[in-house]
Amino acid sequence: MTDAPMTTPAASTETAGETLSRYLTGQASAFLRALPQAVGEAGARPGALPSVNSPTGTAGTGELLRAVRRIGGALHTFDAVFDNAWAHESRSELRWLLNLLAQEPAYVRRSARLLAALDSLSSTSPAGDGAGPGMLAGHQGAPKARALLDRQLTLSRTRAHSTLLQELRSSRLHALADRMTLLVGEAPLVQPMAGQSGATLLVQASGAFGALAAAVQGLPLQRVAGAYHGDALHRLGATAAPPTGGVPVQARGAGAAAAPGDADTALAADDAPWRRARILLKRARYALEVCGRSAPELDALDQVLDRHQDASDAAMTAATAARTPRITPATAYVLGVVHADQRLEVEAARHAFGRQWPDLPHHGWHEWASA
Amino acid sequence: MTDAPMTTPAASTETAGETLSRYLTGQASAFLRALPQAVGEAGARPGALPSVNSPTGTAGTGELLRAVRRIGGALHTFDAVFDNAWAHESRSELRWLLNLLAQEPAYVRRSARLLAALDSLSSTSPAGDGAGPGMLAGHQGAPKARALLDRQLTLSRTRAHSTLLQELRSSRLHALADRMTLLVGEAPLVQPMAGQSGATLLVQASGAFGALAAAVQGLPLQRVAGAYHGDALHRLGATAAPPTGGVPVQARGAGAAAAPGDADTALAADDAPWRRARILLKRARYALEVCGRSAPELDALDQVLDRHQDASDAAMTAATAARTPRITPATAYVLGVVHADQRLEVEAARHAFGRQWPDLPHHGWHEWASA
Repeated sequence: MTDAPMTTPAASTETAGETLSRYLTGQASAFLRALPQAVGEAGARPGALPSVNSPTGTAGTGELLRAVRRIGGALHTFDAVFDNAWAHESRSELRWLLNLLAQEPAYVRRSARLLAALDSLSSTSPAGDGAGPGMLAGHQGAPKARALLDRQLTLSRTRAHSTLLQELRSSRLHALADRMTLLVGEAPLVQPMAGQSGATLLVQASGAFGALAAAVQGLPLQRVAGAYHGDALHRLGATAAPPTGGVPVQARGAGAAAAPGDADTALAADDAPWRRARILLKRARYALEVCGRSAPELDALDQVLDRHQDASDAAMTAATAARTPRITPATAYVLGVVHADQRLEVEAARHAFGRQWPDLPHHGWHEWASA
Repeated sequence: MTDAPMTTPAASTETAGETLSRYLTGQASAFLRALPQAVGEAGARPGALPSVNSPTGTAGTGELLRAVRRIGGALHTFDAVFDNAWAHESRSELRWLLNLLAQEPAYVRRSARLLAALDSLSSTSPAGDGAGPGMLAGHQGAPKARALLDRQLTLSRTRAHSTLLQELRSSRLHALADRMTLLVGEAPLVQPMAGQSGATLLVQASGAFGALAAAVQGLPLQRVAGAYHGDALHRLGATAAPPTGGVPVQARGAGAAAAPGDADTALAADDAPWRRARILLKRARYALEVCGRSAPELDALDQVLDRHQDASDAAMTAATAARTPRITPATAYVLGVVHADQRLEVEAARHAFGRQWPDLPHHGWHEWASA
């Protein structure tokens, strides 16, 4: 009936409040179990970096991140069942911790992604292992670009790690942990919503799916349906808002020194609706989980949008690195190739999403809900 | 029965020699008509560049190129029907002229392609016209990269034009024109092949198609079948020969200054079988034309491979421009993006070929031949 690991199917006699409480008790317990482990990991080797093997972080921070995402999602989707002020404050604090926790693993993934791309673009492996001569084979800028990206990302990661270590011991975090302790005991539910039948939750969860479907409807799926439309590189389409109020760059005078971040701004604006869809997709996934359902199709799409975000961030990092003072033209050239390569990954993720999505909005929700 | 413009269907009573002679008379006449026009075009404005509107050159050189390709193709495919030494020498001279004629229009197309790509990548058109903010919007390197490419390609084009002008008045060209005059009168055919029925030509033409099919079988169609496999950027595959005898670049010492052309060599090796397929495809097309047949599917595939070659050449030009001394890192970065963008076009052309080809080898030839 379900393979969501943290829940058991809601018994038909359970009220909405009972189902939600059971789910949140489990997640809040996971939060409290993972917290001291995360603090230990972050602080055990002051100055040194912990080895991060999982894409979502080390065991402790990974589990913590997982619980934070699910509790925040449940408080959002089922907000009618909770005390309003409490839920609002809790979500705000959970979002703060989420941003703190997500940073270091994101830098680790970005580093792995960019260095792997560089190695792949630079490889001249002998025939037979499937990795033939790459686009930068023997290019003198490749090792310098690699060293530059490695250095900058290691620095960012170290900073994120220090910040996390500091905040994990802050009074703000202790207050959040107290909130989670409360949640293990009893979630602050409101009547009469909490007393209604468990089926009420499905209605609210379908709202989360509806929000996702509406956001996806705004995505240019038609355009990404065909491969190689240069969607993420150029021809970004009519729907993207121009970054500078629609004034063409030429109109600002060819001689004027354009801000180097203009292109970044333009791409960020283009990526924004996809990033938004990723958040809504996660919420829909967690809402299903609360109802004791699972939807492998949604999990797969979630991974596609994770990939979209990682590639988008990696492209931005390459563009930023290219503005480092005193780099050689050869290094900058390689960073340009890497940037375009990552934007191509962005485009590929959109194409993959556009191929996987269309079956869902019409059939998905009712099938999952009735499973 | 056919829409090939230069031929009429072979009457069933015609011998192979008669059909071929009729075809070659037509093409050689076109050659001789176009030649003085081409000389006039090339020389009319010494120092100035003629306006080239057609992708294959101005009217005169375009017609000349068209005839040269077809005569050379016919002499190759139906070589058993011609005097051996004469056909061999003629093909060698036609190839020489082909290379001369093809250069200037290729530079014109390359310039249009690269500058359009740069403009598209740099555009910040207002929403509504389908061209949103591009990847280099406002990037300070874009105008410099544009000026650099424009300058270098204009120079190359001027040189190609001068060389063509010089050679069009050479004794070597006069000798070739004499050969074409001979061809208008009577092609040097050999018996008994020339006396056989016209159907013999179909057998020889099917040989041209067989050579194409064999070459395509060597292409990694399986790998390009899925979009976004990074085929032309990296992961170039097991079949590509390593450019330096299989010695990984690392083995040559990270400190050693690698030749800047290594990546170009690697990519050229990867593109070579596709370039070869393009030549064989044109030969198959022209062979069908001799037989009074046409195959729109082959014409479409020919255009795809033309696009493959143009994008491959444009990518090489961007990489070469990035090695210009004293350019700024911002310019080099943009050229890296442009290079990757053109390699993406290479990949897109391969993907398009891989989608269009599979229906042909099994059914194509017999259908066309019996049409």
